[in-house]
Order: sequence, then structure tokens, then C-alpha cells
Amino acid sequence: MKNWKWYIEQTSDNEIILHSLREILYSGSSPYQRIEVIRSGNFGRCLILDGKMQSAETDEFIYHEALVHPIMLISNTVEKVLIAGGGEGATLREVLKYPVKEVIMVDLDRSVIEVSKKYLPEWSNGAFDDPRVLLEINDARAYIEKVKNYFDVIIIDLPEPAEGGPAYLLYTKEFYEKVKEALTEEGMMVTQSASTAIHNIRVFVSIVRTLKEVFPYVKPYTVFVPSFFAPWGFVLASKKIDPDISKESIKNKLSSIEETLKFYDIDAHQAMFSLPKHIKNAIEKGGVVIRDDSPLSFY
Amino acid sequence: MKNWKWYIEQTSDNEIILHSLREILYSGSSPYQRIEVIRSGNFGRCLILDGKMQSAETDEFIYHEALVHPIMLISNTVEKVLIAGGGEGATLREVLKYPVKEVIMVDLDRSVIEVSKKYLPEWSNGAFDDPRVLLEINDARAYIEKVKNYFDVIIIDLPEPAEGGPAYLLYTKEFYEKVKEALTEEGMMVTQSASTAIHNIRVFVSIVRTLKEVFPYVKPYTVFVPSFFAPWGFVLASKKIDPDISKESIKNKLSSIEETLKFYDIDAHQAMFSLPKHIKNAIEKGGVVIRDDSPLSFY
Amino acid sequence: MKNWKWYIEQTSDNEIILHSLREILYSGSSPYQRIEVIRSGNFGRCLILDGKMQSAETDEFIYHEALVHPIMLISNTVEKVLIAGGGEGATLREVLKYPVKEVIMVDLDRSVIEVSKKYLPEWSNGAFDDPRVLLEINDARAYIEKVKNYFDVIIIDLPEPAEGGPAYLLYTKEFYEKVKEALTEEGMMVTQSASTAIHNIRVFVSIVRTLKEVFPYVKPYTVFVPSFFAPWGFVLASKKIDPDISKESIKNKLSSIEETLKFYDIDAHQAMFSLPKHIKNAIEKGGVVIRDDSPLSFY
Amino acid sequence: MKNWKWYIEQTSDNEIILHSLREILYSGSSPYQRIEVIRSGNFGRCLILDGKMQSAETDEFIYHEALVHPIMLISNTVEKVLIAGGGEGATLREVLKYPVKEVIMVDLDRSVIEVSKKYLPEWSNGAFDDPRVLLEINDARAYIEKVKNYFDVIIIDLPEPAEGGPAYLLYTKEFYEKVKEALTEEGMMVTQSASTAIHNIRVFVSIVRTLKEVFPYVKPYTVFVPSFFAPWGFVLASKKIDPDISKESIKNKLSSIEETLKFYDIDAHQAMFSLPKHIKNAIEKGGVVIRDDSPLSFY
Repeated sequence: MKNWKWYIEQTSDNEIILHSLREILYSGSSPYQRIEVIRSGNFGRCLILDGKMQSAETDEFIYHEALVHPIMLISNTVEKVLIAGGGEGATLREVLKYPVKEVIMVDLDRSVIEVSKKYLPEWSNGAFDDPRVLLEINDARAYIEKVKNYFDVIIIDLPEPAEGGPAYLLYTKEFYEKVKEALTEEGMMVTQSASTAIHNIRVFVSIVRTLKEVFPYVKPYTVFVPSFFAPWGFVLASKKIDPDISKESIKNKLSSIEETLKFYDIDAHQAMFSLPKHIKNAIEKGGVVIRDDSPLSFY
Repeated sequence: MKNWKWYIEQTSDNEIILHSLREILYSGSSPYQRIEVIRSGNFGRCLILDGKMQSAETDEFIYHEALVHPIMLISNTVEKVLIAGGGEGATLREVLKYPVKEVIMVDLDRSVIEVSKKYLPEWSNGAFDDPRVLLEINDARAYIEKVKNYFDVIIIDLPEPAEGGPAYLLYTKEFYEKVKEALTEEGMMVTQSASTAIHNIRVFVSIVRTLKEVFPYVKPYTVFVPSFFAPWGFVLASKKIDPDISKESIKNKLSSIEETLKFYDIDAHQAMFSLPKHIKNAIEKGGVVIRDDSPLSFY
Repeated sequence: MKNWKWYIEQTSDNEIILHSLREILYSGSSPYQRIEVIRSGNFGRCLILDGKMQSAETDEFIYHEALVHPIMLISNTVEKVLIAGGGEGATLREVLKYPVKEVIMVDLDRSVIEVSKKYLPEWSNGAFDDPRVLLEINDARAYIEKVKNYFDVIIIDLPEPAEGGPAYLLYTKEFYEKVKEALTEEGMMVTQSASTAIHNIRVFVSIVRTLKEVFPYVKPYTVFVPSFFAPWGFVLASKKIDPDISKESIKNKLSSIEETLKFYDIDAHQAMFSLPKHIKNAIEKGGVVIRDDSPLSFY
Repeated sequence: MKNWKWYIEQTSDNEIILHSLREILYSGSSPYQRIEVIRSGNFGRCLILDGKMQSAETDEFIYHEALVHPIMLISNTVEKVLIAGGGEGATLREVLKYPVKEVIMVDLDRSVIEVSKKYLPEWSNGAFDDPRVLLEINDARAYIEKVKNYFDVIIIDLPEPAEGGPAYLLYTKEFYEKVKEALTEEGMMVTQSASTAIHNIRVFVSIVRTLKEVFPYVKPYTVFVPSFFAPWGFVLASKKIDPDISKESIKNKLSSIEETLKFYDIDAHQAMFSLPKHIKNAIEKGGVVIRDDSPLSFY
């Protein structure tokens, strides 16, 4: 062994990941969670909440580009955008590459935002100072429930709901119904959706199934995120617009921002949305509808 | 913690994976390596050589279908096939789904084959008894060096070359030149090629670069294998036939065997071969030519 | 790393021990606890309950000789002995070296006894078949509460009381009062008493303090047990007889059995009962009285 | 799991200790070794060299009092003292409690001393500024070989000799012969001597055996050090004076400094020197003579 300092992340009852630990940049607690910023040997600076990796210097671009660009390219209008969660500011950073008029970011935990600004400034890269941005410290569900027919795009970038944790009721059918109401007629949403590794796929397929109860168009997709040691799932759900758009259309829309992208391009898009047979089968057969009175607890 | 028995796999200087350990089915040594068969909580029975996961009950289908089917579908002729390595017998099992006339499998370590037959019988599923198969216990390089212009397809399914380990000289330019000579004029080869996770991608891009020195057509591709906790790389290299074939051609050729497949279909094919921007960039810029006198040591 | 299979034992919030794991001899559950028998690289066969090391082939002699011989040598009479717990049978084995007339062993979990007999036969070494022994499967407290003025010696050999676990109420003042009543006028008891490592000493000093509320003579002592990675505590408590006896007296009484002992001799006795300054200070100042309505939960 | 940051210390092929890691105070390298100062959950600040715990805030007093006080009390004269190693300065701190005239401390690695002064100032507690102290940065063996018949007491406080490490030839018969020559006629030495846990006792008994080849009086002793998770061995060797001295003599000599001691008192002395039967047996039967041409490599 050449390294003796390690960060131990338990990602399921049956698997544990050890990240070599170079530096502890921050270690504290907010009213909602433990917040840690470390520098790992493989992934540079990392934000970790309650012992779960959130994003890492060397590959946050994969997660955030995968979360933001498909929906922003597919949607006909992106003037009004809501981000639920997204404390690090990187989702905001990607959204602001588009001609948005108003981005509202609702996050519960001001400490995560402050810690990220200080220790992970490249994540937001100044995005919080953009005049189009309004930051609201609030529970995302409480906020969304009060909005009707307003947002073109809603991006849900929240941690997995540990039992009793801050995001516990943000993956349920009732919540998605409120999201649907908060969207314009042609609006669409996307949510990060946990691992798609076949042995841990229960949460992902349940989110797909739950969204199918609410939205007519539901498109799951996935991409490998190295610091998660897993392919990560996302689900895009649309009220009226079919999310299947042509390669040409994507290419055209991408042209103005492609210089700024490190992960996402037309091949990445195609790879993400082309699910292999066993994942399609799992989606078809598996999962439960997640409800407020039977919420799903991730590991 | 609900589990106390663990298998610890160090996958790089900076990362360690712990698999919960239910049962130790076999633990022994051959002249070449430590051989262990365990039952893990997430992945069922697993074959582990020198502490490195080789294949697992719950997802070996992904690795083996990804290794075998692209080349078998792309090649015009698949009458004579060579498998270098492949001790578990699962690569052989997939190859035999095609109208091959002769499959020669060359593996150095008879113990791996015997242990796999006994503890992992579903992997080979009777393949070793097929009359078209000839098993040769030998060093793959020694065997290949003696063959000229014979095989339509060569599939290289060897463990990563630990320093001084059995596969140390089976990833070099000199070796690939011998492979090229052993292939027919329209022949092609494929090799497993380590992780494509961006922080561990050095070996993968070096294999691509090395093969480009030898073959006119080189197609890297990748798929996530859950029990490896990483997307796995493969590289297909062809002497004369362009490996880019149409969706329709793949579909037609697949039709007779698609019932038997769990992972591979046209979407999986497309996802594997559509590398995202940062992987393409890494391939373009990175890697070294691996030579006998400067072989690459994987972790 | 030369070993990849490990048993992980968390011994406090801040420390974890990994034992290399050679073999899993038994892994099951009783109504009371998880029971595992493994073979470790350092300690041979080990009995582990709920993830906590109970005793190991290579050093169980230290723990069991330290538990049994001081009290048996100090007590004037050893005709009637009660063992509370002691499932492996090794405490019984040591007790039977003395001219006892009747040994009653009360253990709750028949499975531990059966598993020990099968996988760890040297522990009991036939002791369960001795005609002087009566085995009662029962809760030790329930049994003791019904006995008055009967036993010369009571030996408490129970696991630490995890919250809600089987031994939760067997370390309280109320329990020790019942033990006192079950002893003859000159009777005495001994209990295993957790770690005496200074950073984990809270439980040990609380047991001492609690016993001092009940018995006039209380003698704590300690010895290092390698497979626990800690010096282990014991407390001897006596109703009337002063446990400080002379070296000569111990030597005389030992002479008939010293051939059978591997750890205990007069030097070991002296080392165990000579507590260093910081441990004496911790005992003087620390600890709480453990009561039924405020039991102490060990890690 | 409540802690996710850990320091992993492998203490033998078959055992690993994890210390929870609160803070990384220093992490660097000297020409001789990796030097780290961490704050652990159980042991406060810790000095760790090449991944091996050297001393910890909460229990360094045990190790250093055990190393220094027996020899200083037993020796008739303590005017001239040599410390070989002892970089943290705590051995020096204890030695200076006696009426010494000259203490020479020879340590190879100035970085360890500087790091200790900065991050662990209580260890030396100003001792380096005492006018009786001369610090020499040098190889202890090179220094000792040049001295004849000079020191009353030599205290060897060096890390275990990893193969090729800085202390590799400081545990051999040839070295001890030079130590003997450097001592006055009535001089004596003591050395820290690795674990006395029975499964790891090989080094300890070999040091005892080696010293017996050189000195007429050799007294091994041991005390548990919590942060080492093991009882630690020491060996005192004397040229002419019998180290067995009476309780009364120790008590008298202790009286002037006992206020300053946290671990050592007459009971601690007696416990340390009273080795149990199995350790005495191991010493009698085991060990090899360590020589320059066959040095012992600790784990």
C-alpha cells in the first residue's frame, strides 16, 4: 500500500469504495447534513454530503453536462428555468450557456452553497453573480407547489433521499405532479436518478415508472461517472413535446456552445440514450411507483 | 455495517473496492497465479485471479457479449476463430453461437479452466465439449507466432499484464504484429483493453495507439461492467475490412441469435461505439506505443 | 497486499480491525444473534457473534485462564459453581480442573453451544459430557433470580450488551444484587468486563463502580488478549473473603493443575492485578453506576 | 458508519488497523521516510512514519515512561545518557527529569524533529532547549561506534527496521556489541522491541536472544500501548549491575519525580516485568540471533 489515508464510501450493503485522501479541505455540519470537501488521489477536490460523493473536480463536467444539455437542447423554449438543488452551482453554470431569461435555483442548504463557492469555485464559475439568476433558500417541494404553468424547464439536481434526509419527498408521484403543474404546456423536466448498474438499478427503474404515471413522454438515459464508480441515471419527462429529436437538430443547436463542452457531443448523446437490452428489460419489468406514503429510501 | 466479511480489490494506487463476501468456494494457486472463486453479495459467484476480479455470475454476460459479438457480426467470415485466454469458457460459449468450423482456444493455465468448469459451469455451459473446439494449454504468444494467414477472427481475452505476470508480453506492438500475420487477409482481432474511466484510461489509450501502428482499421469501444466498477474498454482491429457496418446489416446478422443474448442488441452496439468527447480526446492525445522492451504494467 | 479476504470488526466509532480471512467455517443466525466461525490468518479458528470477536484458537487460553483461575484459587470453597454464558465451553473446561461437585452453566443460545461443539471442539474438550455439569438453556438473569445462598463461585462470561441484545441487563446493579443473593455467605463472583485500553475504558470502570455499590471487596484486573487487540478487563467481587491472598497460597493451590496451564502462573497473576497509575486513576474518578433503567450500551 | 475518513495501518500480513482521521496536520517526505501527523478520533495527534504509528497524544506517556524510567531508576549513575533516535523529544523529556549532566541525542532525520517540534510540542516540552542536551544529526550506529566506555545509560528509541529503512542495522548483535563498548563498566541499555502479542512475537524474542549473546543481564518487559493496539516490548540489558532491584529502592528513587508521571509507578513496574507463562516460554524457545548479515525485517 502506498497510501494510508482513505475516504470510505459505502454505496450499498454489499459494496464499499475507498478513495485515497490527500487533503481535508473542509469538514463540518449544516442543520441538514455532514458536509466535507476533500482532495482525493484520483478525482481532485470532491464534495461529499453525509458520506456520499456528490461531485468531483476531475469529472463533474460529465455529470453536469449530462444533466443539463439534453433537456436544454430538446426543449423549444428555455426562457424560464428552475433548478431544484444544485448547490455546487455547476448545473447553473451549464444552464447559463443558453439564452435563458430567468433561472431560479431553490436549494435548502445554504452551507453547501457557501462551502462550494469557497472550496470549489470552478463549479459555479461566477454563475451565482449572473443577473438572470435568483437564488432561493427553501425546500424545493414547498417552492414548486406554489408555482403553476411557469417554467419551460425544471432540472432536479438533488441528493438521493436517505430516510429522513432533506430530499426524502422529492422523488414521489405527488411531487412530480406538482412539477408538472409548475411547467408550461410544452415544458419538460429532468432529474438525476441514481445508479443504473444492474445490481443497484431498483431506484432508477422506480423513478422511470413513477414519472410514467405522470408524464406522457419519459426518456431514461445514463452515463458513467468515474467518481461514482457507477453509470449514473437521468430521466427526462415531457408534457407535450416528443424528446426524440434528430441528430441534425441537436448538432445545429449545439454549435454555439460546443466549444465550452468537455463531455457532451452528438456521440455522447447517442450513447446515453441507447440503453442496452438488460437495462431496457429492467425498466420494462421492474420498479415501483414511489409515493409520499411509500417513499423509496436509497442506500 | 451489516456485513463483516469482505473481499478487498485494489484497482489503482488511489482506489480500493470492497465486495461483501458470502462464501469462499475455492482458494488456491497455480504456477501462474492465485485463483479464487467467491460468492459476493452483489455479484454472485466471482472468479478472481491475483486479487483482480475476472468475471462475475450476475454480469459476465455483459463483458463476454461485448467482447465477442461485434467482431463476429462485423467479420464476413467466421469459420476459423482463435481465442487467446478465455479460461472461464464464456467467450467460447458466445463464439459457438456462430457457424464456426474450428475454434482454437489457447490458455496457459489449466487450473483456471478446471476451477471454472467445476465452480462456474454456466460460464462455459458445455462449450469445452463441442467437437469444433480444440483446447491448447500453451502461452498464447508462443502459439500465435507459429501461425500464418489462418484465422478469420482472433479474440484476446487475457488478464491485465501485472509486472512479470503471465500476460506481460501480450499487449505489445510485436505481439500484435504476430497476430496480424496469423490472421487471413480479411481477418480481424479484438482485445479486452482495461478501464476507460478517464482517470485510469492510460492503458486503454496505449492499446489503441499501439494497434494503430499495426492495423489500418482500429475501433475502440466500451461498456460498463458492474463487477469491475468501471466501464471496460475493447479494441477491434481489422486488416482490410472497414468495421463500420450499417445498423441494418447488424440487425440481419443478429436475428438468428438475438434470443440468446441478454446485453447485446443494436442499441448496445451503438452505445458502445459512440465514445463521448473526452474519451475521444484522450485517445487522440494520449497513450504510448507498447513494445516488448517497454511493456506497460497495469496496476 | 498479499491477502484480499478480510473480516472487518468495528470495535468503536473510531477504530476498525481487519482480520485476514482464510476460511468461513460457519455463518448463520440464531434467534439471538449472528454466529460466525472463521479461520483467520493470525488467530486460527474464531467464534464471532454479531461481528464481535468472542474467542480465537490461538489465544482463548489467555482469556479463559484469566477469567477462571484467580477466583477459583482465591475462593476457599469451589464446590458449587455457576457459569452465566460461556457458550464455547472453555470456561467450563477450566472450572472442571478443580474439585467442583456441581457446575451449572446457563446460556441463552443453544446454537452457539452447538456450533462451538462442532467447529471448536478443543474449546470445551469434552467438558459438556462431565457428569458434574448441568447445562441449562435459559436467560442467566431469570435463572439467578430464583437462587438464594447456593453458589460458592459465579462466573459471568457473557458478550457485551449491545443495545437490545441478549446481555443487555446482565451488567446492572440490580443484576449484581441478585448474583450476591445467589452466592453463599463466603461466595464471590467474577465477570469479564470489556476493554481496559484507556480510550475505551468507560465500560470497565462503570462495571467496577457498579460492583462497588453491591460488594465490599471488588478487585479489577486485566490482561492483553491478542485477538481482541486490547487488554481485557475482569472484575472479581467478594461478599466476605478478602481476595488479596499471598503468593505462597496461590503457588500451593496451583501446583496440582499448573501443568495444564499455558498462560496463568504467579507472574501472570501479579501482572494482571498490578494496574498502572492511569488505570487506577480512571477507576477512581470515572464510570457510572449501571442500572436497569439506565443500562450501558457497549459499542 | 459515522466516520468516513480513516488512516489505514497494516501491522502484519494478516491484520490491519483503521484509525478514524479527523485532521491531516502534516504530510511530507524526508530523504529517509514518509512523515505524517494526523489527528485521530481516539488518540489525538499522532506521528506516523512510513505508515506506522510512532506515538500518539493520548498515550505517548505510556510508551515513553515505560522506556525511560526503569533503566533510569535501576542504574546507579545516570550522569551521561545517550538517546539513539527519539525524534519526537519525549524520551528526552523523561530523561531530563533525572539529575543527568549530559544527554546526547543522535537522530538521523532532522525533519522528524522539526515536524515534531511544530505539531507535537508537548512531546518535547522544551527539552531540546535544555543546556544539558546535545543534539546530533547522524546515524546512531556511526556515532556509537566511535565512543568507548562513556555512557551510563543508552536508550534506543528507533522505529522498526523495514527492509532497507533507516534502522535496518540497529538491532543486530554487532550493533549491540558496539553499544556495550560505548557504555561504562556499570552501564546499561534499553531498547524498544516491537510487539509482544504472541502471534507477532518473533522480533521481540529475537532481540532478547541477540542481547543475551552480548550482555550478562537481559530483562525483557512489556506494556500495552493503546494506539499500537498491542502490548509493546522493551529489553533492558546490563553489563554488570543486576537489574532486579527491590520495591523499596524503586519507591525511594521515584519519590522526587512521581508527581510528574502518569503511567509509571511501582505497580506498573511490577506488571511490566511479570511476564506470563506463554511469553516466558516463547522467549525461552524462540527467536534467532540477529546479525548484520542476516538482519531481521519487521513487517
